[in-house]
Amino acid sequence: MKHDCDFCKIAAGLLDCKKVYEDDRAVAFLDYDPISTGHMLLISKVHVPDADLLPEEDAVHLMKVSCRLIAAMKKAFPCDGYTVMQNGGDFNDLDHYHMHIFPRHHGDGFGWVDGGLPQECSDEVAEKIKACL
Amino acid sequence: MKHDCDFCKIAAGLLDCKKVYEDDRAVAFLDYDPISTGHMLLISKVHVPDADLLPEEDAVHLMKVSCRLIAAMKKAFPCDGYTVMQNGGDFNDLDHYHMHIFPRHHGDGFGWVDGGLPQECSDEVAEKIKACL
Repeated sequence: MKHDCDFCKIAAGLLDCKKVYEDDRAVAFLDYDPISTGHMLLISKVHVPDADLLPEEDAVHLMKVSCRLIAAMKKAFPCDGYTVMQNGGDFNDLDHYHMHIFPRHHGDGFGWVDGGLPQECSDEVAEKIKACL
Repeated sequence: MKHDCDFCKIAAGLLDCKKVYEDDRAVAFLDYDPISTGHMLLISKVHVPDADLLPEEDAVHLMKVSCRLIAAMKKAFPCDGYTVMQNGGDFNDLDHYHMHIFPRHHGDGFGWVDGGLPQECSDEVAEKIKACL
């Protein structure tokens, strides 16, 4: 546990949240500033910033729980679809793994903007990643 | 296999792609229209649109592979972070499960816009989802 981390506090029951699910490895609760009604955050109990730094048993478990949460969200808030998003590294503002899961609706206006950085799709790019696997 | 699905064709080796990884259950390849260089799509071989409709063994496997891909991508394309995104239902334009994984950089201008649909974070919302779990 990292003592100045709000998600560690939630995992330890020291900070209140609108909890949806909890077990030994994971907690899910409503985002306090939802993109749409039903927006949940699924966090690991272990304090790790990125997916690739999670112990494998935690990563696998989070995936299983996310699938259950998506199914429940679809029933509770009938929607036209959903989006799952997870930001790592410096784009993880709390430095603690969390997956956003939220319902989508036709015409909801949700979308992403692309800043126009170098965007290369080539055999060289694929080979570079393969070499690091 | 769904014969008019491009991702099924990629999974069956019938359509060319800039492949990064493949095994019995999953294929990863470069997005032909990347948000940033290194942008990959990780697909299930099984034709299923949403995460909650994946057989559990496929869901778990995809999570393990995604963690390996993120680690490799970080090495191949040093970045300040990453984003994982997966759209389901009508927002899955190919109707076949695929997870976007792409590197992020400070000042990359990537972000999302929020259309301003009803956004409620309440005990009632949490209870509604819990009742469907």
